[in-house]
Amino acid sequence: MNVDGLKIVDATLRDGGLVNDFAFDDSFVKALYQANLAAGVDYMEFGYRASRRQFDPCAFGKWKFTSDQDVWEAIGEKDPRMKLSIMVDVGRTDFREDIAPRKDSPIDLFRVATYMETMPEAIEMINYISSLGYETTCNIMAISKCTDEQIAKALYSLAATPALAIYVVDSYGALYPKQARKLTRLYHNILAPVGKEVGMHAHNNQQCAFANTIEARDCGAKWLDGTAFGMGRGAGNCHLEALLGCLNGKKYHIEPLLRLIQEQMLPMKEAGIVWGYNTSYLLTGLANQHPRMAIAATKEKDYEYVEQFKVLSYQ
Amino acid sequence: MNVDGLKIVDATLRDGGLVNDFAFDDSFVKALYQANLAAGVDYMEFGYRASRRQFDPCAFGKWKFTSDQDVWEAIGEKDPRMKLSIMVDVGRTDFREDIAPRKDSPIDLFRVATYMETMPEAIEMINYISSLGYETTCNIMAISKCTDEQIAKALYSLAATPALAIYVVDSYGALYPKQARKLTRLYHNILAPVGKEVGMHAHNNQQCAFANTIEARDCGAKWLDGTAFGMGRGAGNCHLEALLGCLNGKKYHIEPLLRLIQEQMLPMKEAGIVWGYNTSYLLTGLANQHPRMAIAATKEKDYEYVEQFKVLSYQ
Repeated sequence: MNVDGLKIVDATLRDGGLVNDFAFDDSFVKALYQANLAAGVDYMEFGYRASRRQFDPCAFGKWKFTSDQDVWEAIGEKDPRMKLSIMVDVGRTDFREDIAPRKDSPIDLFRVATYMETMPEAIEMINYISSLGYETTCNIMAISKCTDEQIAKALYSLAATPALAIYVVDSYGALYPKQARKLTRLYHNILAPVGKEVGMHAHNNQQCAFANTIEARDCGAKWLDGTAFGMGRGAGNCHLEALLGCLNGKKYHIEPLLRLIQEQMLPMKEAGIVWGYNTSYLLTGLANQHPRMAIAATKEKDYEYVEQFKVLSYQ
Repeated sequence: MNVDGLKIVDATLRDGGLVNDFAFDDSFVKALYQANLAAGVDYMEFGYRASRRQFDPCAFGKWKFTSDQDVWEAIGEKDPRMKLSIMVDVGRTDFREDIAPRKDSPIDLFRVATYMETMPEAIEMINYISSLGYETTCNIMAISKCTDEQIAKALYSLAATPALAIYVVDSYGALYPKQARKLTRLYHNILAPVGKEVGMHAHNNQQCAFANTIEARDCGAKWLDGTAFGMGRGAGNCHLEALLGCLNGKKYHIEPLLRLIQEQMLPMKEAGIVWGYNTSYLLTGLANQHPRMAIAATKEKDYEYVEQFKVLSYQ
């Protein structure tokens, strides 16, 4: 299996943080960091850098607001084998105040997450953050709601920015493998000529997160997101251990993730942190809708799937 | 979504029976039958017709040995909207004694399951059972262990039989979508010219069962297996409700399956019947091995995944 140029990104603290309000123990963060290092993961994402003016720091764990200091405390010193990233959401970050120049920071990459309609703000952020010396990517959320024309227009706009890669983000877990391939090719055809790469961030609503991720790779995507044990919003993400399993070899190693699952992820599940596929998520994915209804149904142990399907069908 | 010529096969009683030793309540079987009918399912499989000489009838529920009488009792009278099937394993059935002519039976189709090395016996069974008036298919198990040359040779042999369709059976859940497509095309190229169709029976060890099933369909497979809530050996099968969801329309309907999950499948899980994806199954799928080690690990609550991976790597 050719792994040249791949960037495996562990997004556990970030997408997983949406499940537990970013309340990760320090010991968990250190274990995850060591596992990623040993596994050959290329980037580890240390949560979000959200605005402390917009969100109450008492209501969330620190990885929603990740400071450089938080990262230094978690990692000790920088290990050159793995880069570190943070995600910033358009409109939810004080990026002009809260980001120091790269030379003073443990962070290498900021991933700018945006919906299609806020692309101008995303581009402004990408340009500004790049000017501080960071690598950047643009993660276009809810891509299953966008037309090919909207996507092409956005990609041509992004072509003029310093962003290294643009992601297909299947926020709703609505894509089938065929669509994941089609979108990856659309991205690739526009981005490759300007020297940019394609990323895939998948959700598991229809149990296609892993399949879509490896299909995207086969169509040229180089940036592949996964999370330990699939931990992420709602139905969760592509399981990082599945991805490392199929890439297992000289560069990537599944074993550190297997140990992490046994020692950290199973106890977390046992403690009542809930994520992963269920029938309610299947239905929101099928309806190409935000998973909020399924998240609520899961929390309330509402198993009235026919009713849920009807509500979604009429939305 | 074009559904012309598709045959959706519900294999819950058969593959699911491997999980609970075929101990289904009569009320469950009736509920499943009604759900399949209402959902537009084309074939419902009523378990196996195993040899009562080889297997102790006291050790299993009746659906391991399914008699015509068992089926009549479950369905009342035949509904022309849905055909009924039974699986017979090469070497594990007294097919010359235990199968009455089709005109006296509620069964339409016998699916002959075989490993590659017992293909001559499978062909003998197909020819004999077809001579009794039944439809037949050949389900080639553990296909991920076979070479293209072995497969092509087997398909050319089967071309001369009355079998309607030949299945890609991913017993080990080892296939990725790319391989599912490649195998489907290989089958299709050999079988289409002789008027036979391709089937896909997938397992979910690497969470690709549903993805592989719809990918096979896009490559020409017409016979698609699913089970309610994915119930089946080990990591289970393609979820029938996911399949019906993406086909939902005039012919196929997801709602009856959604109701069945709420009313029957969730209580069954609650009662302690165990199936579905876990990390041990990922590892046997990855290693392209029979899931027996993962089944044992799951039963024993053995979460030593690194150890399991090492054992599988040296097999």
